[in-house]
Amino acid sequence: MPASYAYLGPEGTFTEVALRTLPEAATRELVPYVSVQSALDAVRAGEAEAAFVPIENSVEGGITTTLDELVAGAPLMIYREVLLSIAFALLVRPGTKLSDIKTVTAHPAAQPQVRNWLKANLPDAVWESAASNADGARLVQEGRYDAAFAGEFAASRYGLEALETDIHDAENAQTRFVLVGRPARPAAPTGADKTSVVLWQRDDHPGGLRDLLGEFATRGINLMLLQSRPTGAGIGNYCFCIDAEGHISDRRVAEALMGLKRICLQVRFLGSYPRADVGPEEVRPLLPGTSDEEFAAAADWVARCQDGRF
Amino acid sequence: MPASYAYLGPEGTFTEVALRTLPEAATRELVPYVSVQSALDAVRAGEAEAAFVPIENSVEGGITTTLDELVAGAPLMIYREVLLSIAFALLVRPGTKLSDIKTVTAHPAAQPQVRNWLKANLPDAVWESAASNADGARLVQEGRYDAAFAGEFAASRYGLEALETDIHDAENAQTRFVLVGRPARPAAPTGADKTSVVLWQRDDHPGGLRDLLGEFATRGINLMLLQSRPTGAGIGNYCFCIDAEGHISDRRVAEALMGLKRICLQVRFLGSYPRADVGPEEVRPLLPGTSDEEFAAAADWVARCQDGRF
Repeated sequence: MPASYAYLGPEGTFTEVALRTLPEAATRELVPYVSVQSALDAVRAGEAEAAFVPIENSVEGGITTTLDELVAGAPLMIYREVLLSIAFALLVRPGTKLSDIKTVTAHPAAQPQVRNWLKANLPDAVWESAASNADGARLVQEGRYDAAFAGEFAASRYGLEALETDIHDAENAQTRFVLVGRPARPAAPTGADKTSVVLWQRDDHPGGLRDLLGEFATRGINLMLLQSRPTGAGIGNYCFCIDAEGHISDRRVAEALMGLKRICLQVRFLGSYPRADVGPEEVRPLLPGTSDEEFAAAADWVARCQDGRF
Repeated sequence: MPASYAYLGPEGTFTEVALRTLPEAATRELVPYVSVQSALDAVRAGEAEAAFVPIENSVEGGITTTLDELVAGAPLMIYREVLLSIAFALLVRPGTKLSDIKTVTAHPAAQPQVRNWLKANLPDAVWESAASNADGARLVQEGRYDAAFAGEFAASRYGLEALETDIHDAENAQTRFVLVGRPARPAAPTGADKTSVVLWQRDDHPGGLRDLLGEFATRGINLMLLQSRPTGAGIGNYCFCIDAEGHISDRRVAEALMGLKRICLQVRFLGSYPRADVGPEEVRPLLPGTSDEEFAAAADWVARCQDGRF
């Protein structure tokens, strides 16, 4: 298997910064791709060992391009997640003053995160979208726009300076990234893990989604993300991308997935992997009766009953 | 109240075409705005009677800009919805051949709907985003790009011709638009209505969302949309935009909303309005025991019991 990681490029974006926080990234060649789709296709085609892409953002929610790529096509699996705090700098050519700025640029995903700042500080500036934040910085370097919103780390790469830093509309603006590879055995549980699945309902009826969520709730499993995505069969037809606390090797999680497999039209397992938000000491306590030991004891008891040995 | 409707402009986009299908639009001045936010702000400020904006799309799902504007700020209410089938035409300057096209443009929301067509027919064309599909057509007219994806109706307005029509990646590609005004009494039920609400959970615990959905399921109410949106309090903090079948004057819907009001941190009512997808003859039959008559009879029975007259 080639020892390279594809990532959503170009170089000098938040994605590359987040990827470099993973210890395993140090031993791989990191190859930028022009889109989430092309990075994941490189994994599917065997050109890259894994791909690193954004999947959720505390301002915009689930990143639909990534979710849709994981929902459809050849199955892929999530092996790692990284959380990165996002704050923008306003990058300009040296000497530019705030009052000189008539045009600003950045990737469209940056816009909701800098909207209020723009309204307050540059209400008349014209916004033009760039292919990425790094590409916006390059366009400022070339003189096409007056200023770009990007990570402060991009300034030196493009010979720009940061006129303002720490720009973000929401407190705790974070983006979640995932490392995605071809399906294989998930890593062993760490004690603070997360399991991702996609669910398709068998039919649409009152209580249908409530019943799916009941498979988790019945086993005391908390959900961390529920994002509906269109199936492509017209308005109102959705599948559900769900992140649940726990690992598929936890008995409560395995039993919930079996329950879903029985009642759903289709279930796609997207992986069990370590949580980036908390460590094993910080996970919420299990509800009574939902530990592996209690599942095992209950199974023993039923087996004894079936044997007449209760 | 000024007799004008704000809409997401510019002129000549799918939004304007959808708006003109509403009979009441014929008697109003229709004023294009540069963004969903500015159109809704015009309503909040009393400059416009109502605003017409896209809210859901069968390819992309809920349109997050619109949902986020309805979730936050001064309360607004949905009065009408319109469904429009979306197919793109490839607009070019007269005489341009497919092989001449090096650059294409459109609003970013068009991209997922034409992606496969582009891959198959213009794999080397460079994509540049435009502020709107109509604006993309204007930029082609000015010679800045070779071709634009837009509604076929935009061709004549910009002196272009349609090289291809009926381009869409998903069958039944539709967009749902809503007419939004300041809160007032909802229109009377038509027999095929929909109710929109936003729910904030009181706390995050296993089964929390299942319990919210149970308020609908217990009363036999089917959901048509469930879209999670970040609350802005960091990754994993979501509120839920829900469309449910029925009208707030239906007893089952009113009782479900009361149940949600009791258990949620906050409930925002976004309106009850006629469904655009089906008429009163086509709505799904009610589950046994969930009609207004049965609710009334059950309330009578409890009152009689409380009186000792059962």
